[in-house]
Amino acid sequence: MATIESLKKQTLDLMHTIQDISAATSVLNWDQETYMPSGASAMRAEQISTLSTLAHQLLTGDKAKSIASDIISHKAETFKDPILRLFVEDHEESVKLPEDLVRRTSKTQSLAQDIWKEARSKSDFSLFAPILSELIELKKEEADCRTYVDSRYDALLNIFEPGITAEQLNPIFDNLRISTKKILDAIEPVKHTVSDAPMMKQYEANKQMEFSKLIAEKMGFNFNNGRLDLTAHPFCTSFTQYDVRLTTRIKENDLASCLYGVIHETGHGLYEQGFSPEYTRTFVANGASIGMHESQSLLWETIITRTEEFWHWALPIMSKIFPEQTIGLTAKDMYHAVNTIQPSLIRVEADEITYNMHIILRFELERDLINGNITVHDIPELWNLKMKEYLGIQTPNDAQGCLQDIHWSFGGFGYFPGYTLGKLYAAMEWKEIQKAIPDIYSQIAHGEFSSILDWLRKNIHAYGRSEKPGEIIKRITGNSLSEAEFVSYAYAKAGSIYGISF
Amino acid sequence: MATIESLKKQTLDLMHTIQDISAATSVLNWDQETYMPSGASAMRAEQISTLSTLAHQLLTGDKAKSIASDIISHKAETFKDPILRLFVEDHEESVKLPEDLVRRTSKTQSLAQDIWKEARSKSDFSLFAPILSELIELKKEEADCRTYVDSRYDALLNIFEPGITAEQLNPIFDNLRISTKKILDAIEPVKHTVSDAPMMKQYEANKQMEFSKLIAEKMGFNFNNGRLDLTAHPFCTSFTQYDVRLTTRIKENDLASCLYGVIHETGHGLYEQGFSPEYTRTFVANGASIGMHESQSLLWETIITRTEEFWHWALPIMSKIFPEQTIGLTAKDMYHAVNTIQPSLIRVEADEITYNMHIILRFELERDLINGNITVHDIPELWNLKMKEYLGIQTPNDAQGCLQDIHWSFGGFGYFPGYTLGKLYAAMEWKEIQKAIPDIYSQIAHGEFSSILDWLRKNIHAYGRSEKPGEIIKRITGNSLSEAEFVSYAYAKAGSIYGISF
Repeated sequence: MATIESLKKQTLDLMHTIQDISAATSVLNWDQETYMPSGASAMRAEQISTLSTLAHQLLTGDKAKSIASDIISHKAETFKDPILRLFVEDHEESVKLPEDLVRRTSKTQSLAQDIWKEARSKSDFSLFAPILSELIELKKEEADCRTYVDSRYDALLNIFEPGITAEQLNPIFDNLRISTKKILDAIEPVKHTVSDAPMMKQYEANKQMEFSKLIAEKMGFNFNNGRLDLTAHPFCTSFTQYDVRLTTRIKENDLASCLYGVIHETGHGLYEQGFSPEYTRTFVANGASIGMHESQSLLWETIITRTEEFWHWALPIMSKIFPEQTIGLTAKDMYHAVNTIQPSLIRVEADEITYNMHIILRFELERDLINGNITVHDIPELWNLKMKEYLGIQTPNDAQGCLQDIHWSFGGFGYFPGYTLGKLYAAMEWKEIQKAIPDIYSQIAHGEFSSILDWLRKNIHAYGRSEKPGEIIKRITGNSLSEAEFVSYAYAKAGSIYGISF
Repeated sequence: MATIESLKKQTLDLMHTIQDISAATSVLNWDQETYMPSGASAMRAEQISTLSTLAHQLLTGDKAKSIASDIISHKAETFKDPILRLFVEDHEESVKLPEDLVRRTSKTQSLAQDIWKEARSKSDFSLFAPILSELIELKKEEADCRTYVDSRYDALLNIFEPGITAEQLNPIFDNLRISTKKILDAIEPVKHTVSDAPMMKQYEANKQMEFSKLIAEKMGFNFNNGRLDLTAHPFCTSFTQYDVRLTTRIKENDLASCLYGVIHETGHGLYEQGFSPEYTRTFVANGASIGMHESQSLLWETIITRTEEFWHWALPIMSKIFPEQTIGLTAKDMYHAVNTIQPSLIRVEADEITYNMHIILRFELERDLINGNITVHDIPELWNLKMKEYLGIQTPNDAQGCLQDIHWSFGGFGYFPGYTLGKLYAAMEWKEIQKAIPDIYSQIAHGEFSSILDWLRKNIHAYGRSEKPGEIIKRITGNSLSEAEFVSYAYAKAGSIYGISF
């Protein structure tokens, strides 16, 4: 048995190799979404599959086995080091998956993304259904290889949110459904008093980018270690903390789509840029979970930059870039415009209150798909029924219905709940930030975001994956996950915007 | 021993993995030159080094050894298949180099590039000399690990141009020197009759791109399987034939820099897009040599698109994009403008005739350095003497002299001759194309390039690396490499441009 020091070195050598391969895979994925010529899809799928297989082989091979067993045999000492502990955890999770399954899944996912794009452009779910069925079978196989107590779906949920079960989400989601209904009912009589018109004017694409980029910079995103590009669907990806890539899309008649899209991805990007540098090229340099990652984007997107104080500072800047569009507008107009509550068809365009209904809908469908209670052929009908039930909305076609999201095409079953968990975590974090920085609203009104970023860096970002999301939330709030903070935040926000009380 | 069929499958499996890793490495390199944020350099170097090491390990490992020995033991049958033969050749070439030497060389090269950049910016060769000495010692060590008959330098030359020796180049280069001198002497009295002014006007960057891209498309480059981007130095890279990336740079006061840069890279790109699809993801899907690759770019750049006929077709198109700049210009004006002959200090700015002198100078220096006949300390003086002797030019400083090229800093000794070999091959190919397509000049005058591309596809591109450059030239011309065609082409071109005869 090696000394702890030499064991650490061996672990790091192997981890660096695996992380470099993963980084290269992420570059291939980013390139595919941004600049890759369309005719290259099939070969790109092969390349991604080859690299994923190699990384998997290294994480599950003899060398990894021997390192993991050495680490375990000195658990008392080694598990204090998150790098060594996560090596064992990730190794053990990976050996559960047969190499052949990993290869088939990766290849199918890569192809499915192209088919999804085509199906969406033709608004025809039936084009996507066959490969989606294949993917679901692969994911069931994967779930069976992993560990779960209650339902197969939990095994997938846990990939993205360690320690959470569908069972645990049910009462939380019930309360969110109830409070959302209460808010929608309350604003119904006064809904026409608030308008999003200021955001829905004609805004030139290149100026939208300029404005959004400026806000991202002010939030603290380091463009020396990152970029912003255009894609069909906005995302954030990171190769190391020194290379974090954001993307957005632009609608010329809707400033919010690009602006808040960029702010959202910047929130993710700040998390990725904020890991403790000692964790670079290790398994620790990653978000604690999808929910924790979403809390970082949503905190900025839905809370901080949708305050009236934010617009006190941002409107004069916006006026310089868009002088005509901002004539006569006040910070309060902007505050109202970006906080209208209005059930909508498209998840990514939803307001922060009704958004959770989109997630609950998807959660129920994917849970039932994976647990085998429904099949892909049920999706369009169920989707449309639930949209009607939860949001009172008629779905006109598949493109705007069950084909709107990319997630299932990349095999991200179990991913969606993270968005709502992110809202719950963000509300809990925001309460702590207000306690820690008493003049926070005044700082925001002056475009000062550095003390928020410092707080996030120190309390969340630096840790990376060294703590589980539940541990982070416990450490910073003293409490466990709950919807309570979000619900009271939602009542307060809706009350302030629509002049009502709950 | 496996059957030939199963041996082929094993070989392909391993080759696909290695080629996919190489493709990913090329994506990382392309990204670094195009879109990567500057702060990511150090991590990108780690990623590239990790992937290169993995590919090398796979090509030299136990599995590769056993496959290679199986292929060799059935040589009579297996060597007919270029995929199997090249696997053995590349494996054998790789195992010759000790891993330690590869690592030391790669590290020294990486350092040398930074030092070269600094030395060039300070125009001080003495800063670069120590690490260049180290690099030369490593390259000598590498040459000794490889095989050569005559001189150590040949071992390095053969990496880029299989089967060529310095001995063979000497009489060819002597004749090029003589004919170049003859041309320069002849045009001296009339050199002011021809002007490149039409290309040196103000040309808007985005319109230069539009025009260049249009020409690339007309040449037959498939943008469904490729792209064109901006970089500091133009290049062409390919991940498979389905994803070929060209880059260019733009000078707003010099249309030729972008236009002929794009045409040059498009020539490379057409070669890469033209390999027989059965060779995809194998070692055969590559150019036969640097010289053969250069012949593809130079054929288009210096021969086809610098004919008067080309400008008969291209000038009206250019006039639509640049109406003001083209007022009063004729095809003959353009023909003259893009064919001026004028000795210059900088290789990459040289015309097609004097360019070879830059190569001969570098060839003589690097050959003598590797064979130990001179030392790095002799470089600046010898460089300046040869510039004076071959081109009549005084070198004002090291930055514009012996520090102008990046090649030696990345260890590319033996690379330069490929540029001139490309010219010789291109002239030989052009003669065959004229025989095969009698109305070729009329086709060019109508913007018809498809029969040229068809000829190249059928006679050169499809083969990839399945034939050595000497075999390709022999097959298409019936002759061996010679400077004769280039020399007579050069006399004819210079004669036509300057109204003189030889």
